Amino acid sequence: MKSSQFFISTLKEAPADAEIVSHKLMLRAGFIKRLGAGIYNYMPMGLRVIRKVEAIIREEMNRAGAVELLMPVVQPAELWQETGRFDKMGPELLRVKDRHERDFIIQPTSEEVVTDIARQELRSYKQLPKNFYHIQTKFRDERRPRFGVMRGREFTMKDAYSFDRDVASAGKSYDTMYAAYCAVFDRLGLQYRAVAADTGAIGGDRSHEFQVIAETGEDAIVYCPTSSYAANIELAESVPLIAQRVAPAQGLEKTPTPGKSTCEDVAALLNLPLQRTVKSLVLATEERNEAGDITKVTVWLLLVRGDHALNEVKAGKLVGLKGGYRFATVAEIEEHFGCKPGYLGPIGLKKPVKVIADRTVANMSDFVCGANEADFHFTGVNWGRDLPEPDEVADIRNAQAGDPSPDGQGVLAIQRGIEVGHVFYLGTKYSKAMNATFLDEGGKPQFFEMGCYGIGVTRILGAAIEQSHDERGIVWPDSIAPFTVVICPIGYDRSAEVKAAADQLHDQLQAQGVDVMLDDRGERPGAMFADWELIGVPHRVVLSDRGLKEGTVEYQGRRDAAATKVAVAEVLAHLQARLSSGPAASA
Amino acid sequence: MKSSQFFISTLKEAPADAEIVSHKLMLRAGFIKRLGAGIYNYMPMGLRVIRKVEAIIREEMNRAGAVELLMPVVQPAELWQETGRFDKMGPELLRVKDRHERDFIIQPTSEEVVTDIARQELRSYKQLPKNFYHIQTKFRDERRPRFGVMRGREFTMKDAYSFDRDVASAGKSYDTMYAAYCAVFDRLGLQYRAVAADTGAIGGDRSHEFQVIAETGEDAIVYCPTSSYAANIELAESVPLIAQRVAPAQGLEKTPTPGKSTCEDVAALLNLPLQRTVKSLVLATEERNEAGDITKVTVWLLLVRGDHALNEVKAGKLVGLKGGYRFATVAEIEEHFGCKPGYLGPIGLKKPVKVIADRTVANMSDFVCGANEADFHFTGVNWGRDLPEPDEVADIRNAQAGDPSPDGQGVLAIQRGIEVGHVFYLGTKYSKAMNATFLDEGGKPQFFEMGCYGIGVTRILGAAIEQSHDERGIVWPDSIAPFTVVICPIGYDRSAEVKAAADQLHDQLQAQGVDVMLDDRGERPGAMFADWELIGVPHRVVLSDRGLKEGTVEYQGRRDAAATKVAVAEVLAHLQARLSSGPAASA
Repeated sequence: MKSSQFFISTLKEAPADAEIVSHKLMLRAGFIKRLGAGIYNYMPMGLRVIRKVEAIIREEMNRAGAVELLMPVVQPAELWQETGRFDKMGPELLRVKDRHERDFIIQPTSEEVVTDIARQELRSYKQLPKNFYHIQTKFRDERRPRFGVMRGREFTMKDAYSFDRDVASAGKSYDTMYAAYCAVFDRLGLQYRAVAADTGAIGGDRSHEFQVIAETGEDAIVYCPTSSYAANIELAESVPLIAQRVAPAQGLEKTPTPGKSTCEDVAALLNLPLQRTVKSLVLATEERNEAGDITKVTVWLLLVRGDHALNEVKAGKLVGLKGGYRFATVAEIEEHFGCKPGYLGPIGLKKPVKVIADRTVANMSDFVCGANEADFHFTGVNWGRDLPEPDEVADIRNAQAGDPSPDGQGVLAIQRGIEVGHVFYLGTKYSKAMNATFLDEGGKPQFFEMGCYGIGVTRILGAAIEQSHDERGIVWPDSIAPFTVVICPIGYDRSAEVKAAADQLHDQLQAQGVDVMLDDRGERPGAMFADWELIGVPHRVVLSDRGLKEGTVEYQGRRDAAATKVAVAEVLAHLQARLSSGPAASA
Repeated sequence: MKSSQFFISTLKEAPADAEIVSHKLMLRAGFIKRLGAGIYNYMPMGLRVIRKVEAIIREEMNRAGAVELLMPVVQPAELWQETGRFDKMGPELLRVKDRHERDFIIQPTSEEVVTDIARQELRSYKQLPKNFYHIQTKFRDERRPRFGVMRGREFTMKDAYSFDRDVASAGKSYDTMYAAYCAVFDRLGLQYRAVAADTGAIGGDRSHEFQVIAETGEDAIVYCPTSSYAANIELAESVPLIAQRVAPAQGLEKTPTPGKSTCEDVAALLNLPLQRTVKSLVLATEERNEAGDITKVTVWLLLVRGDHALNEVKAGKLVGLKGGYRFATVAEIEEHFGCKPGYLGPIGLKKPVKVIADRTVANMSDFVCGANEADFHFTGVNWGRDLPEPDEVADIRNAQAGDPSPDGQGVLAIQRGIEVGHVFYLGTKYSKAMNATFLDEGGKPQFFEMGCYGIGVTRILGAAIEQSHDERGIVWPDSIAPFTVVICPIGYDRSAEVKAAADQLHDQLQAQGVDVMLDDRGERPGAMFADWELIGVPHRVVLSDRGLKEGTVEYQGRRDAAATKVAVAEVLAHLQARLSSGPAASA
């Protein structure tokens, strides 16, 4: 293709509201154009990348036996009422009334619709397993859309849904999708990690996120470099760092710590390692009567080591908290602890609270905690001697780099990632809610065992850029670059030789099926090179009168420090060598 | 592909709410599945056809120099307020409020968004002409959605928008799109006609509809079989059928016509040709003051020959009516004519009305019309002698088969069509409303000259089926059939020979790039054949033990009356011959 038949629009500066590098670069390189908050036009350059991503996903989904269909964007509320999501989902679900005042939603996903299809179409066990997918526009009315395509409101997603006759078969469908996702992300040329993720109320271990590795990622990935262990921070197990509690060596002492309300400040004041301190976090749960009035409030004290962070997802799975909790109010804290926050601890409570200690805290001796008196902490605290054993010991903290791996195979590391895919075993959550059954061999109705599998198509663009860019712009993997090769002729409009050579190379590459762009805009070389480096085309060939006179062109890979002179006769072979090495060439 | 990797779902009977054949067949063949009124799931079989249609459109649009992008489904109301369409459009425009109570619309088309892109991105005449298009989900909240994909609410449309520097250049862009549309519909293998269409307030002659010919079509197409003249019925000019008024031969006479209130009944009673009668239609226009109160009502009497039909679009272009009109009420009619409807005419009015005669009526002599007295008509009526000349003579009727062609090249014929595409010169309607300008050579801002070009992607499926089906099901053109060839092995699960031969043929065809389906379901031959005839696959090969023993398979084209025995060794060549003849083979 020649640039005159296309549309190129680059900016020197990104608009001020673009906060992260992928958003800035996508705007500057003319991939997207803002229409409203979290709503973007995908400009011609960006759409090319989207289409390449979609094509790879589609091929791998088909290869894995999934069948493509297309479910509507505007969906009747009735189905969403069957599962209760119409009412339960917050304002992220965009609700709309039609001309007859009937309720509809703009789809954020399609569990309801696909389950409705299955309960009508999949009548016999003989039709199972079946996996339906579509690639469709989604809308999620984010409270604060930002980061361009990373947290937009309208976006494109591939969502697949598997239907199986039993748990074992559903497990196989899950494994097939897991493998297909690996194939997709391999082919996309992205560095990624599949990590175990929380399954919430559904339980089990059948949930994995596919995370694109990027320093700027929102998610923390916990993994073991010497084993296959990988989980997101919400799920990653934290083993106790102290194998066994040792006998007390110090006496309990109330120590003045004026104005020192954090573990860090107290440790510094007392000249102790932070690992000797214990942090107190106060939560509350409520019981309500049928009228919805609060009948009882229970206060919970959660203890983690001073250098550890509470894991709110893990806390939310504890028996007493899994119905929902909140952080306690200052009034509730003062009522139970007789003290303002900053100096709280498990000793000398005014009213009873439930004490939950992290597995590491439960094995600590001679530790430091708040004295429930402003400007005072206790030192030399010991379980059993100075206070009762905790009501419960549990894993309630985030894993940290350097922790032993839960599989016993090494030491954990942490890296940042951007979630671009998710495979999830749903069980019978939706099939039961919607009474979706098939007939088994005995002619008896059984609920479908389901799984759902999503890939954020447009989000992949942002994630790929976060992972791979430099100060000049984007560095696309070959597989999803808007163009694989750009030909930059110097003096295309002035030199017949340059024009002829550029056209010939363009036609030859096109005939070989290479996605090639010839820049015939007549821009100055500097501006032309800057545009294509910003856009991130992985391979560039520059033709000039001077070079052609000596029989050479200049080749430069997007990551190469400098250009290489290549004989005109060799250029096709040279490019083929660089291209055929595939995604690795740009890694 | 093998059917076990796909999803086939056929029905013996169509649901009762399916009124037309394409809707019935699409439901029965499992192409679509209703989700709500006018909202359909595109099932795997239907989606294959959609993707093929989209691919052909995309190729031809790209070839014509248009550039693909993707504009959002959910669009901010602000842009639609700039053009006034947010308020002017009726309830067809689906309006929605986001979580912050801001107004949005679900796009029915994208003039506003693309013009917004152009005014930001196309700054100089050097960037023109430019044509942007997208293929995207649309929503139009039809009052009464029906006929499946023919008048659905959610549908897929290709819409393109051209931006030019002046009228001459916009004309070239229009011609390019017109040619691209011809290429698209040629390749789709459809019998179609491009017909001139009304341009409404924009005027000029730059509007064409692309109509797929089908007896069941909603639109009447007027064309001249011996010339290139073709227009839709709204636009087609009706020349006067009487070249010149002849002198009166009869005297005016009031004739009793008790109970005969239609021209047909009166002509029969009086034993006269219908062509001697004149039909009276009464319209009203209103003037209002600034407060919106009606200050004046004008009544109009429109006269067309008894065998002609009023053309409401043509009437709406007359000077006095183009501000909007309605049919008069019975009260208004009695006030002005002193008579109830059924016996109205231009003679002896009680209060003045504006009389507009069709060009044919104006040249009639000795005609029959109502006497403005119940149960009476006048005969022998003559202009000038019995009543004043009409206030205006105009073309206000529908063209009829047999009328002379307006180009003087023959006689008009009428056929039915289904509108699937529209090319339209917009001029500066949107660019002026949105202040969308570029800088000309002199650095002066100029409004873009625009055109818009739509193709109803999903509607094409319905139109193709209306055009081409039989009592057994759909007959797809090769180019958009869900599969081009179906292999039906008899005893695939029982006979190793049949399985081997079927698999081999499948693999050979697939290797040649033929879109082939192998039915491995193990259905009985009758059920299997019926399914694929319903689905409409154009080429079928049947393999059986008996045939293979004598070295033959059976080939049958979807339109062939019977199967042909083909030697196993010849089958690939035989298929290639049938396939390579392309769309014509199935015409």
